[in-house]
Amino acid sequence: MLRINFTRLKRDLEELSAIGRTPQGGVSRPSFSDADMQARRWLLDRITAAGMEGRVDAAGNIFGRWQSGGPAVLVGSHIDSVPNGGRFDGALGVLAGLECLRRVKEEEVPLRHPLELVAFTDEEGAFGGFFGSYAFTGVLKAEDISKSKDSKGLRIVEAMARHGMDAMQAPTAYRDPKDIRAYVELHIEQGPVLEARQIPVGVVDAIVGIHRYGITFRGRADHAGPTPMQDRKDALLGASDLVLKGRELALTAGSPASRVTVGVVQVKPGVANIVPAEAYLTYEIREQSAELLRLLAEKSRALAADVAKAWGLEVSFESILQIDPVPLAEEVKGAIAAAAERIGLPSLRMPAMAGHDAQVVGRVAPAGMIFVPSKDGRSHSPLEFTADEDVERGANILLLALLKLAAE
Amino acid sequence: MLRINFTRLKRDLEELSAIGRTPQGGVSRPSFSDADMQARRWLLDRITAAGMEGRVDAAGNIFGRWQSGGPAVLVGSHIDSVPNGGRFDGALGVLAGLECLRRVKEEEVPLRHPLELVAFTDEEGAFGGFFGSYAFTGVLKAEDISKSKDSKGLRIVEAMARHGMDAMQAPTAYRDPKDIRAYVELHIEQGPVLEARQIPVGVVDAIVGIHRYGITFRGRADHAGPTPMQDRKDALLGASDLVLKGRELALTAGSPASRVTVGVVQVKPGVANIVPAEAYLTYEIREQSAELLRLLAEKSRALAADVAKAWGLEVSFESILQIDPVPLAEEVKGAIAAAAERIGLPSLRMPAMAGHDAQVVGRVAPAGMIFVPSKDGRSHSPLEFTADEDVERGANILLLALLKLAAE
Repeated sequence: MLRINFTRLKRDLEELSAIGRTPQGGVSRPSFSDADMQARRWLLDRITAAGMEGRVDAAGNIFGRWQSGGPAVLVGSHIDSVPNGGRFDGALGVLAGLECLRRVKEEEVPLRHPLELVAFTDEEGAFGGFFGSYAFTGVLKAEDISKSKDSKGLRIVEAMARHGMDAMQAPTAYRDPKDIRAYVELHIEQGPVLEARQIPVGVVDAIVGIHRYGITFRGRADHAGPTPMQDRKDALLGASDLVLKGRELALTAGSPASRVTVGVVQVKPGVANIVPAEAYLTYEIREQSAELLRLLAEKSRALAADVAKAWGLEVSFESILQIDPVPLAEEVKGAIAAAAERIGLPSLRMPAMAGHDAQVVGRVAPAGMIFVPSKDGRSHSPLEFTADEDVERGANILLLALLKLAAE
Repeated sequence: MLRINFTRLKRDLEELSAIGRTPQGGVSRPSFSDADMQARRWLLDRITAAGMEGRVDAAGNIFGRWQSGGPAVLVGSHIDSVPNGGRFDGALGVLAGLECLRRVKEEEVPLRHPLELVAFTDEEGAFGGFFGSYAFTGVLKAEDISKSKDSKGLRIVEAMARHGMDAMQAPTAYRDPKDIRAYVELHIEQGPVLEARQIPVGVVDAIVGIHRYGITFRGRADHAGPTPMQDRKDALLGASDLVLKGRELALTAGSPASRVTVGVVQVKPGVANIVPAEAYLTYEIREQSAELLRLLAEKSRALAADVAKAWGLEVSFESILQIDPVPLAEEVKGAIAAAAERIGLPSLRMPAMAGHDAQVVGRVAPAGMIFVPSKDGRSHSPLEFTADEDVERGANILLLALLKLAAE
């Protein structure tokens, strides 16, 4: 039975984790940052070193292909990261995929379908998220590209131009779904379930839907001394109230898999002795069921309106991200489960609570995901960790699943 | 009866308000910003144009003096502003003071004590507040200077060095209180009381005390998807809870003059799909009674500790500002009230709810403040407004009060 070369995979993981490393031991590689550009060059070098031709499409997605002709079995993930994030998120899927291609090439395994490695651009959302997989699947629109900017206001058009790329050309990265046999992504769970249940492999059933909103409360800037407490229109009171009540909503009206998160708060004018005139926050809802997700979004909107009214504020909503839940392909799930069984490992069907490129590709082609355990469920943090043993098991299951999908 | 030249005062107010004007019609002149430096040069020009000698001390305080010898009656305020603040806060006291000196000089009024105009440095707190009046009254310490920095981390030492000033020399700006006969400051009320009661003049009884803290809640950064709501250590939940409960505390445990304000919130890492690991906020308490102020500070600290515990967070406190309430001098209050009576205007004894240089000078010398109405109580905002009539009345009362204090 073909196996991956774990020593080589581990060295790759270590080399990549040194690019954009933070003082806390995490990595910061937001898309098109200097660190991301360095990581891209490094990956292209690895592809070349493996005897394949590296290719970058108009959306900045990186490819490496073994054999040509006919629909390909794609394997990959992303190499960008959140600020001060972990070493495994995304990187594992790309590097394990690379290792699978190397082994298949080394052993000259005959395949019916070519294998193709992909590292998608901006999965993590420095510029909104899924830029690469949206372009690849043909859902990226020119107006989205021209509006897309990072938290500091830098437009993706400018960010890519700095590196000689024309963002407006990204839609030409579209690949006809008929040319995609399947897409498989190995990823850390980023949650506590596999570790807690001591199961080494997760077969992802469906990927959670995400609604992300920008909510702005507007009140009145007043001097913090003379203005009586009762006369204030303090925008931060509305924002704080919504932070607490949004959490309550997830717990009382949601499923056990429902999440409400406020990760960004910006107060204006943001001075100690001025009552906040404006408070902006991001409000993100996640849920597996499309129906419940819609319901939670509706209730959240009503909640924000009620909170604004109670504090004498105005409130506005802006939709930042709206991703429906995506069920994954039974055929790919079957190949993953069969691979785990062949190696003799128990596996668990489970939802993916985070967004992944597999949900974007999964809308147009058969897609599947393999999860491996995350220590303490930690992710998007320097403390993100997956044991060597789990990395190796996951990569071997990936290899067997790819072989099965490429052979049929 | 001597009167100020209102046309001239109004032109000065307009000219100064054009320096650092914001698109919203407010002014942004934080200390040692380009706009502040331009305003300083403009003020020195006005002093020179009035036939007096302008002087800048080691703390950057600006002076203009009419006649020499013996303890002076000081008049003034500050010309720095909060970001996007109003045109009257501080500027009115300095420019009305300048106008009084000009009139006394023009009419060659014989005085027993010299009159001296002062514009104190950084009253508003770009670098912590009261830098100029602290230096002037001898309470500014070298260690405070070296630590003092603005919200972007720029140290006052660097900010002043850019303009050829040595911040560490500021304590040499100390003036022996024996040389200060009195200090009088005309200021807008910045609150709704005078307008609501239709009284044109406030005689300030005492200046509120201020305790300002930096409070940091620390939890854990987790991915916003996989981490169940119950397992999170979300620092923003603690901060939001304290924002709401701090307000409740002011309303239930305070006096009608008690204020609790959170004007700054900073969330780390500050990304939509990461549970906040850290939330910093400024927490400011104001109260007239020293005892109640201490009690509210104690209760707030206990509240923050309770909130942290309830959400599974750690919390730390840092004292940013600690100013005791300051009663003003009966002699100066009497001179102001007598001036109002002489002009035939009713006046109201009232507290000042904002910090003023008068509270700093008032600790070492007889000090007093005159308030004029603020439209809708608005201040620290582009909508700050005081009617011409009220400006003129206030300036005339200032003139008569100065003459009385300088004559005795």
